[in-house]
Amino acid sequence: MRDLIKRALSADPLAIAKLITLVENGGEEKIEVLRELYPFMGKAHYIGITGAPGVGKSTLIDKLISQLRSEGSRVGVIAVDPSSPFTGGAFLGDRLRMQRHATDPGVFIRSMGSRGALGGLAKATADVSKVLDACGFDYVIVETVGAGQNEVDIIKTADTVILVLVPGLGDDVQIIKAGIMEIGDIFVINKSDKDGAQRLAKEVEMWMEFGYKDKNWKPPVVMTIAEDGTGVDKLVAEIKRHVSYLRESGEIKIRRKSRVLEEINLALEEVLQKHVNRVVGEETLNNYVDLILEGKLDLYTVVEEIVTKIIRT
Amino acid sequence: MRDLIKRALSADPLAIAKLITLVENGGEEKIEVLRELYPFMGKAHYIGITGAPGVGKSTLIDKLISQLRSEGSRVGVIAVDPSSPFTGGAFLGDRLRMQRHATDPGVFIRSMGSRGALGGLAKATADVSKVLDACGFDYVIVETVGAGQNEVDIIKTADTVILVLVPGLGDDVQIIKAGIMEIGDIFVINKSDKDGAQRLAKEVEMWMEFGYKDKNWKPPVVMTIAEDGTGVDKLVAEIKRHVSYLRESGEIKIRRKSRVLEEINLALEEVLQKHVNRVVGEETLNNYVDLILEGKLDLYTVVEEIVTKIIRT
Repeated sequence: MRDLIKRALSADPLAIAKLITLVENGGEEKIEVLRELYPFMGKAHYIGITGAPGVGKSTLIDKLISQLRSEGSRVGVIAVDPSSPFTGGAFLGDRLRMQRHATDPGVFIRSMGSRGALGGLAKATADVSKVLDACGFDYVIVETVGAGQNEVDIIKTADTVILVLVPGLGDDVQIIKAGIMEIGDIFVINKSDKDGAQRLAKEVEMWMEFGYKDKNWKPPVVMTIAEDGTGVDKLVAEIKRHVSYLRESGEIKIRRKSRVLEEINLALEEVLQKHVNRVVGEETLNNYVDLILEGKLDLYTVVEEIVTKIIRT
Repeated sequence: MRDLIKRALSADPLAIAKLITLVENGGEEKIEVLRELYPFMGKAHYIGITGAPGVGKSTLIDKLISQLRSEGSRVGVIAVDPSSPFTGGAFLGDRLRMQRHATDPGVFIRSMGSRGALGGLAKATADVSKVLDACGFDYVIVETVGAGQNEVDIIKTADTVILVLVPGLGDDVQIIKAGIMEIGDIFVINKSDKDGAQRLAKEVEMWMEFGYKDKNWKPPVVMTIAEDGTGVDKLVAEIKRHVSYLRESGEIKIRRKSRVLEEINLALEEVLQKHVNRVVGEETLNNYVDLILEGKLDLYTVVEEIVTKIIRT
């Protein structure tokens, strides 16, 4: 294990992949890996990219990788988007295009299946991000579809959240209404050569008059055509401007504190759940459920009984 | 309190409203109320109605209420949709239209604000549903927007989940891709006089070939025009067919067991969180966060320390 970690820390892709698998599998080994890696974390900048399926997130990330690599930065990508070519949900062409980064040791791409609960996925994504952070990637990019349950949880703790919209998908109003607007630090209007791009940009600007996430950072709206790379340099510039802002304002500390708090809560839930399972087996739990359904016991008496069994008073 | 509960059980709307407020406020009184009501629960049929903003959920519910009332059933509605006229998010006309049920003692409408976490909202919605159930409403309808975070949690435990789509909103593909398809028991294509309604219905049918929630119940697709009531009788008939199916197949027991399990877990989390807060104050927690950010302690050591403090070993 020590050897594996040593190799991962010196950027051996195979060792990194193995560590991530250990972390994904959970259990004692996950905790051991993360403990060993802890002292090396905290240097990466976390970017969350979200938007409806079909807005071109993956193509955009592909171009972002190229740009960031040309500047010598190392880039880790975690795709939790079921429609992403990284996770195998898209057209063959997209997938092939991504492959060109596969042999570059400065790029690490990992797709996260949605097996298990989505809540669990949020935790797994956070853990894998930390591995990439510790292994020296300068940017850790997490890609998710914007609409799904708990998706917001996955990326809301990123340092920089990028929301991708396209004209004509009809999702503009929906995204705005669903409250996803308020998590964006940078808005991207992709496929900006299409009809309605300017109108959509104006709509976003208009909505921002009602307020945005951080009153000292008005999210810029960047027009891109990911397909041919138009505007990607501008996007990178805005990401860097946001990085500087976060550092200079001290906002980065606030965000990271809230990320750590969220992580403590998630880990606590996980551990406490284990203790509940240890004390209350499946059979006992099923008995409780039956008694509740028959009206012989109420929910709160049951919970009280379980809690009394596990809590030190 | 006893008197209040007695009056609520004999369908006094004012008493019901007061009980719900107690339950929403949480704490000891909530638990007392729910404990007293427990023996009276389990008779209502729970319906979840979801769909993007603007698909006409509220108008549909308005018409559903009229139809169910004309058959003598009592109907409780909980609106957790921020765009719903019940919660005050829509046009004045819609809101006025709803008011006609306000004086009918066989109808109880409650809107749930999204103050507090959405996770908390799921729990609050479940609790209020139970109050309405115990107070003798035959149907408890919960209305939510389909796209938001944790929204799925709110309605997935309903006995019958109705998904409302409209042609031309561009959300068909998104809803399908976001995995919301798989929670529907009945699909409604509303505004079915609009262009594209038949195509959307076909698309839904096509997606169903990939499978649906319960292999013994193929979700019907009902065409409606909520505005003038077209198709609402058909929707009520399908709801009743689903009720019969759930009862005859024994599926209702499976769903209710999973609902109770979910409720136990939510209540456990709530209670355990309280114990964590009791033992680890805000200051200690902030210290932990700082130590983690400085790399002096790792997350798992912190969680272990907290757990050791509260768990009986």
